[in-house]
Amino acid sequence: MSAGPGQNQGQAQNLGQVEQRLAKLDLVVPDVARPVAAYVPAMRDGDLVWTSGQLPMVGGSLAATGKVGDGEGQVSAEQARELARTCALNALAAVKSVIGDLDLVTQVVKVVGYVASDPAFTGQPGVVNGASELLGLVFAEAGVHARSAVGVAVLPLDAPVEVEIVVRVR
Amino acid sequence: MSAGPGQNQGQAQNLGQVEQRLAKLDLVVPDVARPVAAYVPAMRDGDLVWTSGQLPMVGGSLAATGKVGDGEGQVSAEQARELARTCALNALAAVKSVIGDLDLVTQVVKVVGYVASDPAFTGQPGVVNGASELLGLVFAEAGVHARSAVGVAVLPLDAPVEVEIVVRVR
Amino acid sequence: MSAGPGQNQGQAQNLGQVEQRLAKLDLVVPDVARPVAAYVPAMRDGDLVWTSGQLPMVGGSLAATGKVGDGEGQVSAEQARELARTCALNALAAVKSVIGDLDLVTQVVKVVGYVASDPAFTGQPGVVNGASELLGLVFAEAGVHARSAVGVAVLPLDAPVEVEIVVRVR
Repeated sequence: MSAGPGQNQGQAQNLGQVEQRLAKLDLVVPDVARPVAAYVPAMRDGDLVWTSGQLPMVGGSLAATGKVGDGEGQVSAEQARELARTCALNALAAVKSVIGDLDLVTQVVKVVGYVASDPAFTGQPGVVNGASELLGLVFAEAGVHARSAVGVAVLPLDAPVEVEIVVRVR
Repeated sequence: MSAGPGQNQGQAQNLGQVEQRLAKLDLVVPDVARPVAAYVPAMRDGDLVWTSGQLPMVGGSLAATGKVGDGEGQVSAEQARELARTCALNALAAVKSVIGDLDLVTQVVKVVGYVASDPAFTGQPGVVNGASELLGLVFAEAGVHARSAVGVAVLPLDAPVEVEIVVRVR
Repeated sequence: MSAGPGQNQGQAQNLGQVEQRLAKLDLVVPDVARPVAAYVPAMRDGDLVWTSGQLPMVGGSLAATGKVGDGEGQVSAEQARELARTCALNALAAVKSVIGDLDLVTQVVKVVGYVASDPAFTGQPGVVNGASELLGLVFAEAGVHARSAVGVAVLPLDAPVEVEIVVRVR
């Protein structure tokens, strides 16, 4: 997910503005995780790109598993917030897989963040802020979006967070 | 959320048809709840407006908290139905925040209702009807929509219900 | 849901290509389940059709109820996968109810699969594959979609699975 500054500078000359902003955050757009099944990471329809729900995969594995909550052995809100950021980065990778260049994104329209939650944990908005804030950092005004955050019972592979986005492209 | 008839009549001269219908139900479109984070109450994209998930906030506070179910101390289905109506009203406020006049809505396209549910509670459709029926009352045919109702583990701030809508506008 | 081969052959002369492919799978598009409330099975908006969340109804009743998991008395992952397929068939019925002919579908854009899950069950993608694979079988390339799969606490009428789709039509 991250790369040394030297590596980022080396890549930066070939990157669009959006990926340069990600590089300043020490983030690189990962290779998109290819789903094993009869669906794709993202689908373009007209000027909208709808992503599949993205898990916090890093290098092909989940960065963490479990339910978010305050109990022992549970994923903390702060850790979940970082996982949501990773989900958003993977969502950008999914978008890039169908449009090639993230600079073509003109607006993030909608974000849905699902948080696998202990029934007593009610801080889903703070968790999903990890995704929203990354989008704001890299797209500025174009990254401001409508959003829903919900706490679900469990997510695929026991992921703590899943994020899907809809973006407008040109 | 409600206002006396005299107050509504006083406002009615400045209101569009949709808000006049709401006034007859003793409802006024509230000030939109500004999210604290990097997102907005609603986003317009072309002829569609997508709202953020709306909680049953009244005057800046949740009208109720807890899980919906038949157990002691839980939110009853009937109470949750009224909360869903409040969520829908807040969704209209969110739409209004980006288009200014609710008379510009030509069709409610989609409603998703999340109900924070005791795992034994299966009456989510009846709960979300509180939102659907309000939309039908104020928009008539244009208020008829596709809808999903699901029972989730927990919602932000322990809200019992969350509703998001997508509407077409002119 | 299924019909004898003879019956399918008899109907096949009046069926479009999509329904002929379903008939080869021994599937017929059911009459759409009319919701009792202020919403409809599907809503067309421009070139998109958004369906309501579809339950695994067969002949007006749920094909199964309960939570998906490995516990005693729970719905197995394999059974849930078949239920997801039934949900997808009902989603096609919902789409047909607004466009008349499924051959007018040019692309399945998005699928969301909600799986009522024991908190320990993390195989939601495999369950929702039942829906994705049916769409791939009947629409081929046009059936490939973006998708989210989440595990929720409980679904309407205690259904184990609920599926909603968005499709592009001409």
